[in-house]
Amino acid sequence: MNLPVDDILVHLNEGLGQSVERLSQLLRIPSIGTDRAYQAQTLEAANWLVRELSEIGFEAGLRETPGQPAVVAHHPGPEGAPHILYYGHYDVQPAEPLDLWGSPPFEPAIVDGPAGKRIVARGAVDNKGQLMMFVEAFRAWKAVHGALPVGVTVFLEGEEESGSPSLDGFLEAHKHELQADVCVVSDTNMWDIDTPALGIMLRGLLYLELTLHGPSQDLHSGLYGGAVPNPLNILTRILGDLHDEQGRVQIPGFYDELEDLGELERDWQALDFDEASFLGHAGLSRSAGEAGFSTIARIWSRPTCDLNGIWGGYAGAGAKTVIPAKASAKLSCRLVPGQDAGRIKEGFRTFLDARMPEDCRYELEELGAGPAIKTSTNSPFLNAAEAALSDIFGRAPILVGMGGSIPAVGAIKQHLGIESILMGFGLDDDRVHAPNEKFELRCFLNGIRSHAALLGRLGKL
Amino acid sequence: MNLPVDDILVHLNEGLGQSVERLSQLLRIPSIGTDRAYQAQTLEAANWLVRELSEIGFEAGLRETPGQPAVVAHHPGPEGAPHILYYGHYDVQPAEPLDLWGSPPFEPAIVDGPAGKRIVARGAVDNKGQLMMFVEAFRAWKAVHGALPVGVTVFLEGEEESGSPSLDGFLEAHKHELQADVCVVSDTNMWDIDTPALGIMLRGLLYLELTLHGPSQDLHSGLYGGAVPNPLNILTRILGDLHDEQGRVQIPGFYDELEDLGELERDWQALDFDEASFLGHAGLSRSAGEAGFSTIARIWSRPTCDLNGIWGGYAGAGAKTVIPAKASAKLSCRLVPGQDAGRIKEGFRTFLDARMPEDCRYELEELGAGPAIKTSTNSPFLNAAEAALSDIFGRAPILVGMGGSIPAVGAIKQHLGIESILMGFGLDDDRVHAPNEKFELRCFLNGIRSHAALLGRLGKL
Repeated sequence: MNLPVDDILVHLNEGLGQSVERLSQLLRIPSIGTDRAYQAQTLEAANWLVRELSEIGFEAGLRETPGQPAVVAHHPGPEGAPHILYYGHYDVQPAEPLDLWGSPPFEPAIVDGPAGKRIVARGAVDNKGQLMMFVEAFRAWKAVHGALPVGVTVFLEGEEESGSPSLDGFLEAHKHELQADVCVVSDTNMWDIDTPALGIMLRGLLYLELTLHGPSQDLHSGLYGGAVPNPLNILTRILGDLHDEQGRVQIPGFYDELEDLGELERDWQALDFDEASFLGHAGLSRSAGEAGFSTIARIWSRPTCDLNGIWGGYAGAGAKTVIPAKASAKLSCRLVPGQDAGRIKEGFRTFLDARMPEDCRYELEELGAGPAIKTSTNSPFLNAAEAALSDIFGRAPILVGMGGSIPAVGAIKQHLGIESILMGFGLDDDRVHAPNEKFELRCFLNGIRSHAALLGRLGKL
Repeated sequence: MNLPVDDILVHLNEGLGQSVERLSQLLRIPSIGTDRAYQAQTLEAANWLVRELSEIGFEAGLRETPGQPAVVAHHPGPEGAPHILYYGHYDVQPAEPLDLWGSPPFEPAIVDGPAGKRIVARGAVDNKGQLMMFVEAFRAWKAVHGALPVGVTVFLEGEEESGSPSLDGFLEAHKHELQADVCVVSDTNMWDIDTPALGIMLRGLLYLELTLHGPSQDLHSGLYGGAVPNPLNILTRILGDLHDEQGRVQIPGFYDELEDLGELERDWQALDFDEASFLGHAGLSRSAGEAGFSTIARIWSRPTCDLNGIWGGYAGAGAKTVIPAKASAKLSCRLVPGQDAGRIKEGFRTFLDARMPEDCRYELEELGAGPAIKTSTNSPFLNAAEAALSDIFGRAPILVGMGGSIPAVGAIKQHLGIESILMGFGLDDDRVHAPNEKFELRCFLNGIRSHAALLGRLGKL
């Protein structure tokens, strides 16, 4: 099938207001999948997407999982055309700390920025804004041509921000229903607002929660202090030991199985990366981290271990002279090709065992794990994406690494046997996972246009 | 004045039920002075005590401070008799974690224990139960003899659990009204349930809150992790450095000015201290802490640095891959004779400055400070207390050190120029500051009787 894309692009430009309004409807639903208190709202977002896709002409429905349901929708394509799987997630991160938001996180606000209008809300870009780009592209193709140029299956999960606990089982159980030639994922960033990017390497993730137990109950620090193990002191002592002076992670075996990235890493080092701007978005002036590596290497191709939360004892107003019975932390490792999450977790147990004092014990819970991903650069599908992005932006996309994890990409490769095209339209300053998350409307529109163009290119394969 | 005490002791035994009921009334008022949300209830507890003391015949009232008001009450004694100041505090610690309480913290429950009935509530022993002992002793003297054998001033503060921020100014401003020959304080423990104790040394306290700032906003750990300073990693690294492998505090100058306790410390080492029982109350099997010192030394005569709370990043359900903009901790040092809180705080700043990475900064807030106290063992007042306790228990009290701080004792010495008799009736397993705080009714009754006997002894001086 060889239908023109230009008519669609015109249609999209004219309909941007309605596209933004549909995105806003979805953003108003606080689908915080990680928090059971938002169970009903998370389901509501899934149902909203089923209705939206059905309206466009998809055969859409919910599929149960042990956790949040998945949205699955199918649309046939022309005989002999490729079949494409589109992946996204409708759950969002918690919005805390709420007091740092300029407007309520679930009341989308359109505000002016240096690059034009932007939409501010939790999930604006991660991932509701990005998934609505391909939904809007489908809608436009149907509106203009009454058909899609390829067969499409949409799969939207509700547990991405929880580490996708049900994903492996779901993909395995639905491997026939979800079969496709390639998967398209929009959950990544552009190089800059004018330059598209395709991700060819993603760091993996191992997310753990550690609880350290000492005394059987909270103790008075005067009556007991100095003669008993204090779980807070011990937790900071152990976790403070996670990196050496060179910023290298001290988990045994952490660097033992790293794949040599060779030329790829050298290419990236040569990129004209605006470090000052990257750090400036975070209010920082100097790159920090593993000694001997560039900022690009630190975020794309080096593994990390970051604490994501810590708590224990008294955190209220004023002074409480307590030695608490326990202390906890959440921590996560970004993994690179070659590292195995299971072996890193065992290494962390070894690290803990070597440092755990008498009378103390710990629990370690895994809250998510997925390997790093490297995709091939010579597939016809990736080439189609390169061409589509060149069509829309007038310049070729940069092939990049990505510091963040999309566990689904690894799971889709493992269970369905297909690679993913990582074509995302976020920017580094979008404040993903933080207060005042935003999405530039210019990126949103260009993303919809790029997805429409990609559909056209894929239809010609 | 030489009135018999025996009649009073009989009266007290018969009236125990009413004494417990009056204590319960006070315990039902959640006077959490550290938390502004309990402002009204804290004031209500102060007013309850004013009414109680007025009913006994005191001239009682509230005195304003910049924080919680103080209760001050006066009762004249016979011409020429000593004048005694009684100190206590009507504020209590927060009750969190609430889910670990077996009964609501502000609904006093009388339950059976191995030593008979006990009362369970926040403040049961610290300090409502202990202050009500001398109030009940006053009441009994008035009921039986219509008079008190000494002049009495009662001073009850409402900020002890907040580190007594208004205390110095208040004592200085009311030094004439509060003048007395000696101060009596009941905020300490017995040696065991059958053996009374008098405290002659108390550790001091320096309580600090530290907030460490890194990035200007919360960051996504995938997009930024590995290339930016993570305040949680840095906080644990710095605080994990507070002790060396020998358990010695690494704050510069921490041990430089320690007074040599000589014979006193050797006497204490020789005490028949039941370490297994002391640790067993905390669910522990081995003493931990500074190498080369006994458990008694570690809690009575050695300085400490304990974390009391830590927080930062995400502590909710599930996984959030965030690098937070800041991280905080509460920590406190127990001080011994010779140490100066101000110099220790400056030492901690030096400790922090030496470890603070680029692009990070910190704030340090002082939430309380008071020096260690050593009192003289040959004063007639202390001897009167020794005699009174011997009268009631049939055995001499043990002269002990105390690990906890009572900032008031140092401040009273400094501003009013008088020493304090530390005659307390708590037990090590009372779960002070922790869930299910309790007070043995046997200790409560013996404490009232001892205070009644002490009044008699002091009246004969």
